[in-house]
Amino acid sequence: MSTTIKEPAVKATTTTPSDREIRMERIFNAPRARVWKAITEPDLLAQWWGRGNKLVIERYEFQRGGHWRFVEHSDHGEHGFEGRFREISPIERMSMTFEWDGMPGHVIVQTIVLDDLGDDRTRMVSLALFHTTEERDGMMKSGMEGGANESYAALDRVLETLA
Amino acid sequence: MSTTIKEPAVKATTTTPSDREIRMERIFNAPRARVWKAITEPDLLAQWWGRGNKLVIERYEFQRGGHWRFVEHSDHGEHGFEGRFREISPIERMSMTFEWDGMPGHVIVQTIVLDDLGDDRTRMVSLALFHTTEERDGMMKSGMEGGANESYAALDRVLETLA
Repeated sequence: MSTTIKEPAVKATTTTPSDREIRMERIFNAPRARVWKAITEPDLLAQWWGRGNKLVIERYEFQRGGHWRFVEHSDHGEHGFEGRFREISPIERMSMTFEWDGMPGHVIVQTIVLDDLGDDRTRMVSLALFHTTEERDGMMKSGMEGGANESYAALDRVLETLA
Repeated sequence: MSTTIKEPAVKATTTTPSDREIRMERIFNAPRARVWKAITEPDLLAQWWGRGNKLVIERYEFQRGGHWRFVEHSDHGEHGFEGRFREISPIERMSMTFEWDGMPGHVIVQTIVLDDLGDDRTRMVSLALFHTTEERDGMMKSGMEGGANESYAALDRVLETLA
């Protein structure tokens, strides 16, 4: 199913804490355990990660050293993404590598931290570390921020269904 | 077969051009096309990469975006290494990612450049770029330099067999 998603009402706060990093911060209206579930269980991931596009999860070994590979099918073709899990500390923190088939070998380290805000809300901080500033800037220009905000809006909807 | 290899007589020049890089330079007594062959054909790679240890090449897709995975079997156990080819410019230059199973998701970008010295000798420059200085320093302390010199000495012997 391919749907057009409008610009989300809630946007993440995006900053660049160093010349090789992008940091995104976003609050979700759900307790931390529920957010963790939605971002780590493949059946749920497939519902929001692709922002309405069909997502095929070809590999998902959710453990340290395990590999993952997603293929997103959109009107514009197929896009493969893959990486490897580096650290998993349920329900608080995970780190994995990320690369897009279009730029093979250009690897980002993504770290996601969930903070329990104590009122059934959760703050997600997503930090991406690149090998070079050029790769970081290329990602910024690719529309990554808008795409992430669309994914987060879709994640809001998945979290509602889990309530 | 597991053999003990003595400290090689010829050593690479190792430098750290930046706080996230290690550069090794080594001259081989063979023309560039022969060195390229020995470092890119899996049957030949398996003869020197493991420094005398058995090397099983589980995956070797030698093209941009292709994956590779080697498992080295030594007296101390098995060690897996893998990555993805990023750039291949025969017989001059190649770039690929590299990670060791023991530190999954800690990815190095390795670039190898071969210079034809015009007298049937070839200069190989190998540049490794890390995400962090800590990872670079950890690699330096792991005995990487001695291991590389042992591999290069084994590569010398493979090059002789191809002469």
